[in-house]
Amino acid sequence: MSAPIRFRIQAADPGGRARCGLVETPHGSFETPAFMAVGTQATVKTLDPRDLREAGCRIILANAYHLSLRPGADRVARLGGLHRFMGWEGPILTDSGGYQLFSLAPLARVTDEGIDFQSHLDGARQMLTPERSVEIQEALGADIAMVLDEPLGFPHTREEAEAALRRTAAWARRSREARRRPDQALFGIVQGGAFEDLRRASAAELVPLDFPGYAVGGLCLGEGKRETDALLAAAADALPWEKPRYVMGMGTPADLIRSVRLGADMFDCVMPTRHARRGNLFTWQGRLSIKRNEFAEDSAPIGPACGCPACRGGFSRAYLRHLFQAEEALGQRLMTLHNVFFYQELAGRMREVIRAGRFDSWAEELLAGPLGRDPEGPPGGGQGLRRSPAGRLLRPAAPGEE
Amino acid sequence: MSAPIRFRIQAADPGGRARCGLVETPHGSFETPAFMAVGTQATVKTLDPRDLREAGCRIILANAYHLSLRPGADRVARLGGLHRFMGWEGPILTDSGGYQLFSLAPLARVTDEGIDFQSHLDGARQMLTPERSVEIQEALGADIAMVLDEPLGFPHTREEAEAALRRTAAWARRSREARRRPDQALFGIVQGGAFEDLRRASAAELVPLDFPGYAVGGLCLGEGKRETDALLAAAADALPWEKPRYVMGMGTPADLIRSVRLGADMFDCVMPTRHARRGNLFTWQGRLSIKRNEFAEDSAPIGPACGCPACRGGFSRAYLRHLFQAEEALGQRLMTLHNVFFYQELAGRMREVIRAGRFDSWAEELLAGPLGRDPEGPPGGGQGLRRSPAGRLLRPAAPGEE
Repeated sequence: MSAPIRFRIQAADPGGRARCGLVETPHGSFETPAFMAVGTQATVKTLDPRDLREAGCRIILANAYHLSLRPGADRVARLGGLHRFMGWEGPILTDSGGYQLFSLAPLARVTDEGIDFQSHLDGARQMLTPERSVEIQEALGADIAMVLDEPLGFPHTREEAEAALRRTAAWARRSREARRRPDQALFGIVQGGAFEDLRRASAAELVPLDFPGYAVGGLCLGEGKRETDALLAAAADALPWEKPRYVMGMGTPADLIRSVRLGADMFDCVMPTRHARRGNLFTWQGRLSIKRNEFAEDSAPIGPACGCPACRGGFSRAYLRHLFQAEEALGQRLMTLHNVFFYQELAGRMREVIRAGRFDSWAEELLAGPLGRDPEGPPGGGQGLRRSPAGRLLRPAAPGEE
Repeated sequence: MSAPIRFRIQAADPGGRARCGLVETPHGSFETPAFMAVGTQATVKTLDPRDLREAGCRIILANAYHLSLRPGADRVARLGGLHRFMGWEGPILTDSGGYQLFSLAPLARVTDEGIDFQSHLDGARQMLTPERSVEIQEALGADIAMVLDEPLGFPHTREEAEAALRRTAAWARRSREARRRPDQALFGIVQGGAFEDLRRASAAELVPLDFPGYAVGGLCLGEGKRETDALLAAAADALPWEKPRYVMGMGTPADLIRSVRLGADMFDCVMPTRHARRGNLFTWQGRLSIKRNEFAEDSAPIGPACGCPACRGGFSRAYLRHLFQAEEALGQRLMTLHNVFFYQELAGRMREVIRAGRFDSWAEELLAGPLGRDPEGPPGGGQGLRRSPAGRLLRPAAPGEE
């Protein structure tokens, strides 16, 4: 099979690990570092495809677990595939659904065969295997699919991390075998929990399988930022330089900058979209909450000199605050446009400064400023899971996936 | 004062009462018959100004009562007025708030002075007088404002209708006196309840005041369609031919056609927008509910050959059904775009056939088809109020104004 995607590194930070590149897919190309807005149910919440383009999106993410339950992967296939279904002509990545399964489905249980679970919609008992996950994602027809992996709770023991690592590696091999579509790339996922050597071991299991790209999963589980960085660095350094690296479910602007410094290329996170719907807005001067009284008569746009459709459109902080308080859907859409644009602009600036050979000093400066001091979002912004008292894995917060 | 608006009748149905015309306002002109989408809280729910333009809107309606409570009329004035606040550059009409007051505020009480009520947001006791209503609407700065009228419950006695008529006429005079802004037109409102002679009497009270336009209020209270038509005909025939006539809170497509036949020029109703949010979609072949199973794999757009942004955008019934079931905001917006476009197209066709001198045969044909058989919307689509057991006026349904 010819490669469904091609990745070319176009520039790298001299003396560092940051790089920028271009990924070509059957539905067009996107530059890296790239941020993928999250469109769980075949829509990035509140936005249509034109909105996405105007917010600067080039690739988006959808969720195989959700779409396989509703409207059904075969149904999407019969309707011409996910691109046509949602009217988005650019690249799409689907995640496998393992993570969502644990965060949403009651009583999910892992065996070597796969994950046995109950649909969070109708309670129907189902089995998700690596093969079935590939089949679902091929029916959906995204440009990039993800292998099924076993998510790990936090905290966890070394033994638990080793077991999940082994299973994830075995599932990666089975997923590779199950693959049929020549026009869809399948990425492997590095696990290994909170142990740097296990991160290296997980990568070492996957690299011989020669995936066209690799994700790092299970970060931001609850460990500190410094530990996250060390785990990502261990994984990234053990992956081939010439393949794209995707850090799943990450993160704040500062998280992205720190991860690009460690060699990451692709990101997804509900943070910009979910925050927007709660009135939390990103600017280069820091985060602001539209609820605050100080904005009640503020005729300025959200971000000074921001080029997003909401700010360019002349919508003031006062109007957005009014819409938020009146619970008007337009407010959520305008604020989502702003936050998604901000994340795209952030990725674009990283590409620029990498090309200009001055990523490191730029990153230092940014991390010392308001973006570096940005409070972590409400839990649920990252990919963190935690255990319930009964030992079941739980997402930290926020009912309802993005 | 020079006239803030100008109305020119451009064509009239030979032998009938239907006419088409042009209203020029300080914010541009619109053709009649005109349908105004309802933007209660300074947004037509889910749509931004570009959406409104693309759906064919030329004039929209906002609500003085809601906006005076939140964010406050003076605040809107300090932010540059309603047009600037919401980013809509075209004509705006504000209704006075009397109707909303009765449908939303607990314990509203009418005296000759005005309406004493409690805010539905915070319970604060306030008095809305005709003068205060003009002041609020002048602060908001719409192109067309409405006098405060006394809404009437249904059913009602002749005595109640006479009392409301007298008070509405007295308030119309006071409103006229209170007017200060030369760039805002103030319309009178014909009441008179379910009595044709009182409709004529109400019009006769208002005509000497020489308003630049007249509304007919209190229709679709619960009376039958034939009675509505008779009441509207009585009012319209008693109003000057050369002034625009606005039927408040109406209605289904068939209601609009029948009312234009009786000489009406302007309409507003929550029906297209509220129906859209509930998945009820208007087409020339009749109304459809997107929830139905038959649409689950229907790749066609909502309306065959429909030119609305949703249908032109390639969004299928199957995708819209999915969005509706997944409770995704994008579905509400796309369906709102469709329904609002449909109403604008309906108004546009009426203008065409009036110009072509064949309104009557066109109307006959349409009313004999699926649009004539269209079931009435859920209550709350019209301007109907009813009495609670305790005698208080109530809206028939649907909590939350449009």
